[in-house]
Amino acid sequence: MERVDHLADERNKAEFNVDDMKIVWAGSRHAFDVSNRISRLVANDPIFEKSKRAVMSRKELFKNTLRKSVHAWKMIKELRLSDEEGIKLRSFMDQPGFLDLHWGMFVPAIKGQGTEEQQQKWLSLANKMQIIGCYAQTELGHGSNVQGLETTATFDPKTDQFIIHSPTQTSSKWWPGGLGKVSTHAVVYARLITDGKDHGVHGFIVQLRSLDDHSPLPGITVGDIGMKFGNGAYNSMDNGFLMFDHFRIPRDQMLMRLSKVTREGKYVASDVPRQLVYGTMVYVRQSIVSNASTALARAVCIATRYSAVRRQFGSQDGGIETQVIDYKTQQNRLFPLLASAYAFRFVGEWLKWLYTDVTQRLEASDFATLPEAHACTAGLKSMTTSATSDGIEECRKLCGGHGYLWCSGLPELFAVYVPACTYEGDNVVLQLQVARFLMKTVSQLGSGKAPSGTTAYMGRAKHLLQCRSGVRNAEDWLNPGMVLEAFEARSLRMAVTCANNLSKFENQEQGFSELLADLVEAATAHCQLIVVSKFIAKVEGNIEGKGVKKQLKNLCYIYALYLLHKHLGDFLSTNSVTPEQGSLANRQLQSLYSQVRPNAVALVDAFDYTDHYLGSVLGRYDGNVYPKLFEEALKDPLNDSVVPDGYHEYIRPLIKQRFRSAKL
Amino acid sequence: MERVDHLADERNKAEFNVDDMKIVWAGSRHAFDVSNRISRLVANDPIFEKSKRAVMSRKELFKNTLRKSVHAWKMIKELRLSDEEGIKLRSFMDQPGFLDLHWGMFVPAIKGQGTEEQQQKWLSLANKMQIIGCYAQTELGHGSNVQGLETTATFDPKTDQFIIHSPTQTSSKWWPGGLGKVSTHAVVYARLITDGKDHGVHGFIVQLRSLDDHSPLPGITVGDIGMKFGNGAYNSMDNGFLMFDHFRIPRDQMLMRLSKVTREGKYVASDVPRQLVYGTMVYVRQSIVSNASTALARAVCIATRYSAVRRQFGSQDGGIETQVIDYKTQQNRLFPLLASAYAFRFVGEWLKWLYTDVTQRLEASDFATLPEAHACTAGLKSMTTSATSDGIEECRKLCGGHGYLWCSGLPELFAVYVPACTYEGDNVVLQLQVARFLMKTVSQLGSGKAPSGTTAYMGRAKHLLQCRSGVRNAEDWLNPGMVLEAFEARSLRMAVTCANNLSKFENQEQGFSELLADLVEAATAHCQLIVVSKFIAKVEGNIEGKGVKKQLKNLCYIYALYLLHKHLGDFLSTNSVTPEQGSLANRQLQSLYSQVRPNAVALVDAFDYTDHYLGSVLGRYDGNVYPKLFEEALKDPLNDSVVPDGYHEYIRPLIKQRFRSAKL
Repeated sequence: MERVDHLADERNKAEFNVDDMKIVWAGSRHAFDVSNRISRLVANDPIFEKSKRAVMSRKELFKNTLRKSVHAWKMIKELRLSDEEGIKLRSFMDQPGFLDLHWGMFVPAIKGQGTEEQQQKWLSLANKMQIIGCYAQTELGHGSNVQGLETTATFDPKTDQFIIHSPTQTSSKWWPGGLGKVSTHAVVYARLITDGKDHGVHGFIVQLRSLDDHSPLPGITVGDIGMKFGNGAYNSMDNGFLMFDHFRIPRDQMLMRLSKVTREGKYVASDVPRQLVYGTMVYVRQSIVSNASTALARAVCIATRYSAVRRQFGSQDGGIETQVIDYKTQQNRLFPLLASAYAFRFVGEWLKWLYTDVTQRLEASDFATLPEAHACTAGLKSMTTSATSDGIEECRKLCGGHGYLWCSGLPELFAVYVPACTYEGDNVVLQLQVARFLMKTVSQLGSGKAPSGTTAYMGRAKHLLQCRSGVRNAEDWLNPGMVLEAFEARSLRMAVTCANNLSKFENQEQGFSELLADLVEAATAHCQLIVVSKFIAKVEGNIEGKGVKKQLKNLCYIYALYLLHKHLGDFLSTNSVTPEQGSLANRQLQSLYSQVRPNAVALVDAFDYTDHYLGSVLGRYDGNVYPKLFEEALKDPLNDSVVPDGYHEYIRPLIKQRFRSAKL
Repeated sequence: MERVDHLADERNKAEFNVDDMKIVWAGSRHAFDVSNRISRLVANDPIFEKSKRAVMSRKELFKNTLRKSVHAWKMIKELRLSDEEGIKLRSFMDQPGFLDLHWGMFVPAIKGQGTEEQQQKWLSLANKMQIIGCYAQTELGHGSNVQGLETTATFDPKTDQFIIHSPTQTSSKWWPGGLGKVSTHAVVYARLITDGKDHGVHGFIVQLRSLDDHSPLPGITVGDIGMKFGNGAYNSMDNGFLMFDHFRIPRDQMLMRLSKVTREGKYVASDVPRQLVYGTMVYVRQSIVSNASTALARAVCIATRYSAVRRQFGSQDGGIETQVIDYKTQQNRLFPLLASAYAFRFVGEWLKWLYTDVTQRLEASDFATLPEAHACTAGLKSMTTSATSDGIEECRKLCGGHGYLWCSGLPELFAVYVPACTYEGDNVVLQLQVARFLMKTVSQLGSGKAPSGTTAYMGRAKHLLQCRSGVRNAEDWLNPGMVLEAFEARSLRMAVTCANNLSKFENQEQGFSELLADLVEAATAHCQLIVVSKFIAKVEGNIEGKGVKKQLKNLCYIYALYLLHKHLGDFLSTNSVTPEQGSLANRQLQSLYSQVRPNAVALVDAFDYTDHYLGSVLGRYDGNVYPKLFEEALKDPLNDSVVPDGYHEYIRPLIKQRFRSAKL
């Protein structure tokens, strides 16, 4: 078969070595090798085929996902894949399923909160998948507020058991993935009650289903919560509900690493520092940031390639039309998203380092940096997932009408991505946590306690509150110091204004509640500064490869100046830049777009996505879009017959004007 | 059955008469009566039931839509519904289907472009639905650019026929709704060629399928283009593809009102003014604006009611939690959307007037106001549909995790709404049309030709270029003159800056292309001014009903000040307001949110939506959300059995560690 590459011209234009960029994107040669190898292993295995998801019924989709998940697990075992390779394989499988929760939440919860004995007993079963677990925290009436959970676990000293119970309908567990139909066990969060006293929410290992015939145990009501957003997306997963009717478990199934209940029913906190829990949170959220860059990069890859394939307007005489990617309006919307994908990649890389650093400190009982690390990861999770959700939908629109086709891959990507804005902390709630931390930092500024980590710049408050940007021409906006100072001044000034307004309230909590909207904006400004500063640090560091650094610098400044333009109101109202400087930034931005233009397709090739993983006719590597759109269309069940099912009952009587007289 | 109303307290708080507001929302008592009656007629008819759409296969969904469409048509006939009532019935049916295109595009195209003889012949068939038609314009490779269409219609003088042909794969018609499986006829747009000369794109009536057995006629290849975004959404519709292989039609099937081809093959333009086409565009786009308010109002209704039902945080001691709607962060995101729904309603009402005005002028051969009306409707279509798409998704997020459930109604509403950003003119392309018109208007400012209609304010350029806002305290932002002046100054100054920058280019087209991004922003500013000014005009006029006017004023200023805050960079960089004035606007906005809060539920009740039309468990009128979420969940096919299909093949072998040795 002849191999076409409609994008060959685009690839020839690139001014850098795309293979070198692939290594930078992946993080290391090793990481690239693993991703490259495992993604092709998945792409070449017919069991992982995914193009029919949209037309499968719910039951077929679910069963097909079971098949894929079990196949993936068998591959991991039989090929003796490493943990890293196994994680990659599940990720390239690209279908939400019970493995995600078993490995991503159930096992880590036991590791983090179980005693050594508990870990020994349960992890040996879980690691072999002799039991399948999920993570049952969220309730029908209680999402973000964990302390509001209603499920109870009451200690019964007579039998040495906990009685797990759902006292109301709103206390039903609701949403946990893998719970509805697959899981045999769950880590269940419930209010611990001993001797009439409520000790707050704790975790318990609970068996839900018989290991013989999979039927729910007596006292347990469990099922699926029904259809969710999208055709495929999370409908492949059995998000579930769960109610307990005085269900008993042995005392030793309370996860007792941080606190325990004795045989006598006495509640005892252990000397293991509770801060360890935050270490886990930092881990989970850094992986969400890393996934944000992966997801946004997918959407950007599709939109960029198709923008180079697609032509509209620009010819008055029936000749060849202009490539859509050559329009400034397209570049203005697309290139900031391309830059964001890279920005999130590098801030994610830095978060991995932060997690390692936090872990080492925790092991040395150094908790000093934890609050800052916690606020920073919360904020970055919020900011990157919101930007990615919006960015995927923007990429869909950038593909014009065809972006609305399921086979563009973008509807599915959007539907499967948007929950990231809600799970692991609602994005607005998380920004408020950042805001609280910023307010605390500002309030301590004169106290001699120097702010650290990502808030270190606040230590230069005196300078940042009075400095004036020195930008005089468009090129100055490529000066890392000037860009950083503008972002630092804006962020600090917004935080200080909030703190001043807060101080006018007698009741701080009431003030906080009145100023919520401003506080969210200040937190967002702080988080944007973090991403900009980490991107700048990356491009100022050592980067190998022909032309690679130049491209990354362009993307870095596109990201910063795009934010500056988007939030110009912040920068102007805090006097961090003048209107003229804002206008120079915009001019520089337009020039950077022109520099990125010839490199755009190669910059998305650097993600090294297979066509299987992309799952998009519009984003195909070879750009052979139109013939393949036809092929996809012909697969639709509606095209099984030329005359559709329903013709004789409905269409024919209509056009023949022969209705049976029907009672209305 | 006991009737619950969990929102009764909310309804009692309202400070206005909701029945009066319903009339204002509907536009008139008559319009309210029709909507109210027809929506309940649909809601009470079991054939229009729609809760199972998400779990239907593509074929079932399509057939079910045929059934509903034909049933709707029979009702319209048998109940002798008026045109107005019929349109309402199809709209409350709430499922895209072939009727939309037959009545919304096929019939109007013949009316607008057909000669009297053609109308007599074809409309008599179409009006009785003895033929079913669609509108085949867009091609696989050509969307926005109608002049780029490739399909040809070559006149053959020997046979007095046109030969319709698809010369390439990209010339296939692609997207027309109702084309794939249902339509017997289409209005097909093709390049007219006579005697080797290309006369550009014209419309032709083409029969596609046999009226006897529905099979495609020889030379016609037709089918469905496959799955689209969402579970139900437009998958109920057979958007189609269509290729012609030298397909012949009689000469008299060219739509010949504006130009014709004689028996000899001579191309003759008629004396009917071509501007008439723009009248139709104004009509179609004003109805899109009106639909935007309807769709946004649906999303806002769901999010508002559920925000009043849902409680999170705010209790330290296990007591009752705070209603989510009481959080400032929620109000900040939700109330501007509530205000936008009302804003789009009233600007839509004004557009109806504009269409009538334009039509009367066209009949009197007065084309003077047409360019302004055309630019204005293009811009408002773009602005309102973009804001509505984003607003629906924001409402989904405002419902937290449960907004992701299909039964929240919001995923479906989003999926079915977003094409509005692309059809009838891509939103960015439309804003560029507005920008072109603005640039022309600015260039003529000194010429003595006074700008008219929505650009009349530009006639006060001298004042608007130098004025300084007189706002001194937060209350000044409730002064209609001061608000309007700020929006006028911002819009004019942005347009003038663009015009000045344009004038620096020798080649205007190249300048336009370089400045596209700024031009889009200037056009957006102009369109926002139109919506604000029409809303102000509405609330400054006569409005009946207890407390109604006060509420609408609050919403009007929320809308304006929210835009001011969102685009503060524009206002500051054009010196239309100072940072202090911007900050005062924000303070006034917060105060308006507090005033809207007790009225929020009643303000969405005023839309008078039935639970059937809303299609949302979260948005139920009675607020009885949680028990109904359970009921919905239990309907999912996955819950047909306790042990899922796939257990024996996949789950059991996994947990029993009994894989058959499989070849990988």
